[in-house]
This record gives sequence, C-alpha cells and structure tokens, in this order.
Amino acid sequence: MAADTITLSLDQIRELALTTLKANGCNDENASAVAETITTAERDGSSSHGLFRLPGYVASLKSGKANGSAKPSVSRPKPAVVLVDNDYGFAPLGIVAGRDELIDAARSQGIAFMALVNSHHFAALWHEVEPLCDAGLCAFACTAHTASVAPAGGKKKLFSTNPVAFGWPRKDQPPVVFDMATAAMARGEIMLAARDGHDVPLGAGLDANGNPTQDPNAILDGGVQLPFGGYKGSAIALMVELLAAALIGERFSYEATEADNKDGGPARGGEFILAIDPSTTAGEGWLGHSEGLFGKMLAMDGVRLPGDRRYGNRAKSQHQGVAVPAELIEKHNALSKWTCQ
Amino acid sequence: MAADTITLSLDQIRELALTTLKANGCNDENASAVAETITTAERDGSSSHGLFRLPGYVASLKSGKANGSAKPSVSRPKPAVVLVDNDYGFAPLGIVAGRDELIDAARSQGIAFMALVNSHHFAALWHEVEPLCDAGLCAFACTAHTASVAPAGGKKKLFSTNPVAFGWPRKDQPPVVFDMATAAMARGEIMLAARDGHDVPLGAGLDANGNPTQDPNAILDGGVQLPFGGYKGSAIALMVELLAAALIGERFSYEATEADNKDGGPARGGEFILAIDPSTTAGEGWLGHSEGLFGKMLAMDGVRLPGDRRYGNRAKSQHQGVAVPAELIEKHNALSKWTCQ
Repeated sequence: MAADTITLSLDQIRELALTTLKANGCNDENASAVAETITTAERDGSSSHGLFRLPGYVASLKSGKANGSAKPSVSRPKPAVVLVDNDYGFAPLGIVAGRDELIDAARSQGIAFMALVNSHHFAALWHEVEPLCDAGLCAFACTAHTASVAPAGGKKKLFSTNPVAFGWPRKDQPPVVFDMATAAMARGEIMLAARDGHDVPLGAGLDANGNPTQDPNAILDGGVQLPFGGYKGSAIALMVELLAAALIGERFSYEATEADNKDGGPARGGEFILAIDPSTTAGEGWLGHSEGLFGKMLAMDGVRLPGDRRYGNRAKSQHQGVAVPAELIEKHNALSKWTCQ
Repeated sequence: MAADTITLSLDQIRELALTTLKANGCNDENASAVAETITTAERDGSSSHGLFRLPGYVASLKSGKANGSAKPSVSRPKPAVVLVDNDYGFAPLGIVAGRDELIDAARSQGIAFMALVNSHHFAALWHEVEPLCDAGLCAFACTAHTASVAPAGGKKKLFSTNPVAFGWPRKDQPPVVFDMATAAMARGEIMLAARDGHDVPLGAGLDANGNPTQDPNAILDGGVQLPFGGYKGSAIALMVELLAAALIGERFSYEATEADNKDGGPARGGEFILAIDPSTTAGEGWLGHSEGLFGKMLAMDGVRLPGDRRYGNRAKSQHQGVAVPAELIEKHNALSKWTCQ
C-alpha cells in the first residue's frame, strides 16, 4: 500500500472533503463541519477516521438517511444539561453548535453534559474532548453506533465498539487525551487490516462459528468483535450504551442496527459529552499538580502520555502533508470530480 | 481454609465490627457508618472488603492517622458540585453525610458530582453507587489510594488499583452495578490469594525484577500490579487519578504513598462520585427502554448482568449468615474482646 499513495496537504484534504460533501448533498455549514473533522483526523494520523470515512458520509447523504442541511437546535432542559437535537445531520455540526453552551454550563454549574441526539456520528471522539480541554475543562465523551461486539462471555453482537475519550488540560501544552474503542480493536482498524491483508491479534474477535480468529474478514463477515480486557472492558462498553443511548433517549447499538438502512454510512445514534471545571475543587496551582503526575509517567521507561503520538503526527503533517492511498483519492474523484492539483 | 470458618449472622458481623471500632477509637457515628459498610460487604460476598479490612481500620485509628470522631462538613461551591470535607475520617460517614445533597443537586441541575476529600477509603465502591441508583439516578464513582500498579509499558508503581463503579437503576429490581479495579486484579484479591496460598493469573503483575509472575507474594513484596486490558485499562486508571485526585485537589496515589504512615490502614485520599438524573433527557418509559438492553444480555448464553452475583450472595446471606475465617474472628477478639455468642 505504502508505494501507492499520494501526498496531500491539509488544505488539499479539506478541499477534497468539502468538494465531495457539497457535491453530494451537504450545505456549506454541514460540509465545513465534517470536512474539518476529516482534516484534523488526517492531520493527527487517524487515517481510519479521515478520508477513509468520506464514502460512508456520501452514502448516507445519497440514501437520504442523513440530512445534509441539518440545523441543530440547542436547549437547556436543566442548568447543567445541554440538549442538542442534531436534526438528523452528521455529528460535527451539532457538537460545534452546542459547545459554547456546554462550556458555559460547566463553568457556571461546575459540571455539565451535552446530550446529542438525532445525529449520525462517524468520527473519533478526541475532536469533542480537545476543544473542551482547551477551554480549561476536564472532558469525557462516548458514543454508540451499530452492534458489532459481543458482551464478555457471549458470542453474539450486541454492543458497538463504543468508544470513550477523556481529556485533561495542560499548561501551555496540548491536553492529555485518550480516545479508544472499548472493543479490543476499533472497527476502522479491523477494516484497514482487511483492506491491507493483515492479520489482527487474537482476542480481537470471533468468527461466524464463535471461534477465536486472526482473520479480519472472518470477524467482519458474520463474526463478532470482542471487548478489550474481558469482562471489565465489557462493563465499560455497557456503561457507554447506557450513557450514549439510555440516558439521552437514543438508540442502543442493537436498535440502531435494526433501524439502519445499511447504506455503509453512520447509523443514527446519540453521544454523551461531559465537561467539568476543575477550578471549582482542584485548588490553587492545579495545572501544576497534574504536571507532577505526568512527569512521573514520562520519566518511566516504556510509558507515554495518551495523545502524544497524535500530537507528533500533527507536528509533522502541518508541514509535510499526509500520504493518502491513491485508490481512496480516485474513489473521491468519482464522487466529486475533485482532482488533486 | 473452608473447614476453619465460623458462620456469623449479619447482625453478629455488624456487632463485631461496631464493638471493635468503638473499642479502638471510633465514636458511635463513625463506627456505625464503617460497620454498615463492612456488614453489607460480607452480606454481598465481598469478603476482601469486609471483616478482612477491620484490622486495617483499627491500625489507622491506633496510629492516629484516621480521625475516629470525624465530623464531615458538606458545602456546595457550585450548583452541581457537592464538596464533602471528611475531617480525616473514614469514607463511609462522609459519603452518607453528602448523599442527600448530591441527590438534590443531580435532580435540580440534571447532573452533579461529590468531591470527597480529607478522607480514608478502604471499601468497595458499589456502596456509593447503589443508593444513588435506588434514588432513580445513574451513578459513577472512583477513588485512588496508594501506588501499586505500573502504567502500561512501565515497571514501577504509580497508580493505585483505582477502582471504578457504575450503576443504572432498574424498575422493581436492584440496579445494574459494576465495581472493579482498573488493575487486572483487586489488591484485596491478591492479598487473599497470598493468604490462602493460591497462584494468580498471568497478567496480574510483575515481580521485583519486572518479570511476569503468578506468585501473589512476589507481586505484593517489591513487585507491581498491572492494569487490566493493557494500555486501554491503563488509560482508565489515569482517568481515575485525574478525577479522584487532580480534579478535587487530593493526593495522587504516588503522593499518598509518600505521605502515608504505612500503618496498614487506608491512606488519605479523595473520591469522585457522579450522579445523573436520567429523567431530564431519557424520555418517557426510560426504565423500560434499558430493560430491553438487559433482556438482550440475559438472553445470551454465558452473559450475566454486573451485580447479579452480589445480589445472589445477598439473598443467601440474609438467611444463612456468612462463613468467616476463624482466624479473622480471633484477631478481632484480641482487638475488641468481642466474642461470638
């Protein structure tokens, strides 16, 4: 694969995404929000959530499942709750629409959450968490989509890969942010392994007969993924179903699977985004206090801070651009008539 | 071991704990709160957090580290934040002292958290979560204590076993509650394995030379525990340090280790308890909605709901009492002159 790539600048990636989305039913505002998410994913080396997802976004616009002209509405049903009805659009616009209200609520009440409903999420979660940290807040986010993961002990799909992200601000540095599937592997990673003909580690999933397998296609076609860390990871995955669906009145992964039109794009689902203002309880010099912990981690052989690999990619890609599979660009050319200049 | 046990009723367990705590420096109020926690732990089969911990509580009373006459003070620095200063007492009294305020804050603001500081925590976390669920709320709790776990990739202690608990209410049934160490094993479980001469699974920890071991003593004496689920579990453990220490201005596990007097009882530390009112956003019939998910889980071979084993133990122990190691009872006799009638 590596040989057959084309290097695009971040501006080219954004333009490719924008052009493709607008040519397929997104208005400017919705296209810009999604293109920004795709571009920052590529910038940070999250290729499984970058341009790779664009055909899925397009499929959901074409099928009419997602609303490319969505107008999110933001309300405040309780002082510490921000409800964003995303009007069946893609998540990025709704997240941006409710962000200032969430930040305001967290600062005034001490803690607040955003319930994002009637939305189609197809990206990583650090996009949500990082801007909250940049506002000086501690943040957590989780979302559910379609069923692909068996609960610990089981062999049938019930949970989605149910990602969780958490972030903590740092002084004069990008925040510490982790963002991970509660499945042993993100589905995007398994899809990339299948595309590139690689095995996946044992524990990633079971085949259609319920047996452990390292073949990504056997997991994707009739098999199931498994949670990370056995029953403990499965418990976290259950928590995500309850926060991102039950708590906010949205669909569980199994409900989204039943309702989805299988167009290859993101199913309708919810997202839970939490923001906490440390200045209420953390005490004077709290940013320095947490640096003490981070310093201990960084001083230990073999340990790194979550997010650091992404920030390393970010520093490089701003200047060097990103190598994108040529095949992916051709696919977009067909969708949008965009050509790399 | 099994042969050398004495069966005590729950009332006897409570009396044993009460008598021992009061004979060693706890006033009635503090002793009652801790005895209740110990009794409900034994009731639910959490023997590693029951009477097994009583000598540690006593040690911290005797050394003067913990305040047996603590008077927790509850304040509300922001509408959705309940701050409980526990006056250096054991956690159970402070948790009870702030609970109604937390429930009120969650209901009126939609979400709220309790910051418990200047406190000594030595129990399981489902004690905190379950009463919040009984009040119709979704709940999460986490705490840190002393360093025993290496971050993923490392070989030195930095995190504690950093337990997390989460609960969701059910209609006319006890809530779904999970409560687990973010270490591969709870330290209490490793201590019980050491006491009883059992191996622990590979992955539980490293010996003093940084090599994997199944010998619980090698982990406890100079070795380190490991997080569950590799770097993902390690990320959750880091989140716990940030919520239960950085966010609320309390000690990180490594700071608690440095400050602790090593009397064998619980170090000073913080706890983060979150409560969310689903009725704000979950919609009509939300308890029925989540039953749909639980029903899917229960219908799957090999899958059970978190908490069910505890509730099974609870149903039995109410009538049959609990088999307690005779050696443990003798230890308490020496501490309190309590004798089993």
